[in-house]
Amino acid sequence: MNDFSISLAGFAAGPVTTTQQTRIVTCLSVLDWMAVGRAGIDEPVAKAVRNLVLGEEGAAQAHLFGGGAAPLRGAALVNGTVSHALDYDDTHFAHIGHPSVAVLPAALALSEWDDRILVDFLEAALVGMEVSARMGLWLGRNHYQAGFHQTATAGAFGAAVAAGRILKFDVEQMRKTLGLTATRAAGLKAQFGTMGKPYNAGLAASAGVEVALLIAKGFEPNMDALEGPYGFGATHMGAGDSQAALDGLGDEWLFDSVSHKFHACCHGLHAALEAARDLDVAGPEVAEIRVKTHPRWMSVCNQVSPTTGLGAKFSYRTVIAMQALGYDTALPGSYTDMVCADPRLKSLRDRVSVEADEALSETQAHLTLLRRDGARPEATHDLLTPMTLSDREDRVRGKATKLIGSDQADAIWSMLRTGGRARDLSQMLAAKPRASTVESPAQIP
Amino acid sequence: MNDFSISLAGFAAGPVTTTQQTRIVTCLSVLDWMAVGRAGIDEPVAKAVRNLVLGEEGAAQAHLFGGGAAPLRGAALVNGTVSHALDYDDTHFAHIGHPSVAVLPAALALSEWDDRILVDFLEAALVGMEVSARMGLWLGRNHYQAGFHQTATAGAFGAAVAAGRILKFDVEQMRKTLGLTATRAAGLKAQFGTMGKPYNAGLAASAGVEVALLIAKGFEPNMDALEGPYGFGATHMGAGDSQAALDGLGDEWLFDSVSHKFHACCHGLHAALEAARDLDVAGPEVAEIRVKTHPRWMSVCNQVSPTTGLGAKFSYRTVIAMQALGYDTALPGSYTDMVCADPRLKSLRDRVSVEADEALSETQAHLTLLRRDGARPEATHDLLTPMTLSDREDRVRGKATKLIGSDQADAIWSMLRTGGRARDLSQMLAAKPRASTVESPAQIP
Repeated sequence: MNDFSISLAGFAAGPVTTTQQTRIVTCLSVLDWMAVGRAGIDEPVAKAVRNLVLGEEGAAQAHLFGGGAAPLRGAALVNGTVSHALDYDDTHFAHIGHPSVAVLPAALALSEWDDRILVDFLEAALVGMEVSARMGLWLGRNHYQAGFHQTATAGAFGAAVAAGRILKFDVEQMRKTLGLTATRAAGLKAQFGTMGKPYNAGLAASAGVEVALLIAKGFEPNMDALEGPYGFGATHMGAGDSQAALDGLGDEWLFDSVSHKFHACCHGLHAALEAARDLDVAGPEVAEIRVKTHPRWMSVCNQVSPTTGLGAKFSYRTVIAMQALGYDTALPGSYTDMVCADPRLKSLRDRVSVEADEALSETQAHLTLLRRDGARPEATHDLLTPMTLSDREDRVRGKATKLIGSDQADAIWSMLRTGGRARDLSQMLAAKPRASTVESPAQIP
Repeated sequence: MNDFSISLAGFAAGPVTTTQQTRIVTCLSVLDWMAVGRAGIDEPVAKAVRNLVLGEEGAAQAHLFGGGAAPLRGAALVNGTVSHALDYDDTHFAHIGHPSVAVLPAALALSEWDDRILVDFLEAALVGMEVSARMGLWLGRNHYQAGFHQTATAGAFGAAVAAGRILKFDVEQMRKTLGLTATRAAGLKAQFGTMGKPYNAGLAASAGVEVALLIAKGFEPNMDALEGPYGFGATHMGAGDSQAALDGLGDEWLFDSVSHKFHACCHGLHAALEAARDLDVAGPEVAEIRVKTHPRWMSVCNQVSPTTGLGAKFSYRTVIAMQALGYDTALPGSYTDMVCADPRLKSLRDRVSVEADEALSETQAHLTLLRRDGARPEATHDLLTPMTLSDREDRVRGKATKLIGSDQADAIWSMLRTGGRARDLSQMLAAKPRASTVESPAQIP
């Protein structure tokens, strides 16, 4: 009955074998997480949570995005919340959640505090993110459809395991960690669209840290609290197929298929923006641009003529026009009220049409250009299509460079790839993002 | 659709009218909470959570059971957990939970920090406990039967409201408080019988403090997150009849029917122990004692011949024999392995029989003495039978005196009844309980 949690605990506490690819993907997620976290420090939710934690004046155990340091639980709460504030962090479709924002704050805080090397941090982070993905898969779509936010719920288990791994937990301690997290993990999708969404990520990270520290102090919980009629799964409408969720555990990394966002807008727009990269949407011959997308997105991100930066992030017509005009859709600062009022954008936007197409999946989009010369170039993109490792590295490092500048992005990447101490990485949470995240005239063609 | 949360928020933020009786019952719950909290400070779970929070070395914003002080969230976590460690705190049957341990730590920490008078603390505490009882009633038995621990879930809402009341929240802030708590409240019955149970109470108290502090800092959540298909109620199998849960709100206090424990053992044994108080169970003429109880308790607290102090807490035969022999069942320290080995106790225990009786409710027990002279005196007790206010005061103050000594119990009572500052009360969390909580020869007849 408790095979799932026992297997997960065994994996979490045991030796792991990784490939070069998995290690690089992990490093890319860490770089991406640090870049989006640093870009998010001025968001109102970031300020609220930072003020809460800094107001407690606790020991400087781990650094915070935006500067300063706090006790481990507080650092995890802040860093989880801040890094999800822009909703620009990585996504795992099988997990149905964002693995980095829950797990990395916990793993990095513990690693800094225990003065561990980066290799230890990266391994704990990877194992934690794998556990959160497996938990997310086990909880499944039922759990998500019922109203739970897997980033928060499955994420808390991943964060706890990552923290426990830095604390060198054995299998029994890992079982206790999972069991205690079962009474702690929470987070509702009802908070989507509010500060509550990023806060859910911070809660997961902080809960994981708290649980692991308590287990290390000899706390004795019910360690079989995931499965069974009163376990976390059943009570949260998510006890799924444990065999499927364990499939390949230890041999294959679900985490490998994590996806990074390359546009600072609603995920529903990304496939269309990627398809547009394959076409000359800016060409003078383009009379009309036709976008086809999965029907579910029509009510999510098809604002026709938004007038605000926030609205632009949920508008196919606007983001396609922005891309054609050379606005950088990777920069959060590109989405402004001013852009929406740009006459060139308004004119181009009126030549973009959007329609639903049942034949497309949720991760696909199709673009057709109607050129004045009669040509009809078209392109389809599927976000699930694997990128080559080198393309992925180029894109993630390029995104980080845009968000925090090449000096910082390169320094973080070099540190992750060549080794060093976790506390040196953690200290880099503090720097302000460079000015380029705020739209500058140079970015407007 | 959100009538329930709007009404609850209106009540939470508005002026309230209390009776003398309600005010005294509130004071009795505070005294009881302080006494059981101070008696619980040496429990292992208390040490684990205290060490966690004190290890963060945060600002001394609020005092802790067992000494020391910590930031507000940490103080609430510690004080909630410690005061539920002995499972000897108050119970509310309609709430299906323990109101004090979730709400009082939040209300007192905020009141001390904001240097408020005791009247403000008591009002915030009462309003918070009423909200937790109303939430518990709304979540209902379905929620509890599904596996959720109302002390933790409903308790978090009560704690948040109590904290918000000290922060002088208006109706809209209270709605936000309820909405944000919806993504935060958690706690499973799967932890019963482990350190996880008292921890659930600490989590509720701490979550409430965190939520209220964030709302005070301008955090903007979805404030309509209780009701509806994706709200806390529906996702946690607990959206009940909101009209029933609101019935009389503002005019009647559900909290008035809170029940205090007068025996430091499983609640299932209390009705039998109270019935025994009405009979001369210690008389030399008693040949046999027959106990009848509701069938559900037979698998919970009918250990026949336990050999450990913990086992004694779940044994009708043992506690009735203890009472007859003059062991004080109100003292946690009375339940020891040594008592179980006492030859007089073993002999008397063998003359106690226990049987299930479908005709009794869960709160009732029936005792019959079979005397050698042929008499058959009997008594029935129902825990739901209201006590007179003066009886209740005598019993609670008597219990507190046993747990922390008459000087301290009287000093706390006098402070609560005559007024003063919350910080003076909070400082009294620190003192060690007097030696009498450990069984002494004087207590053994």
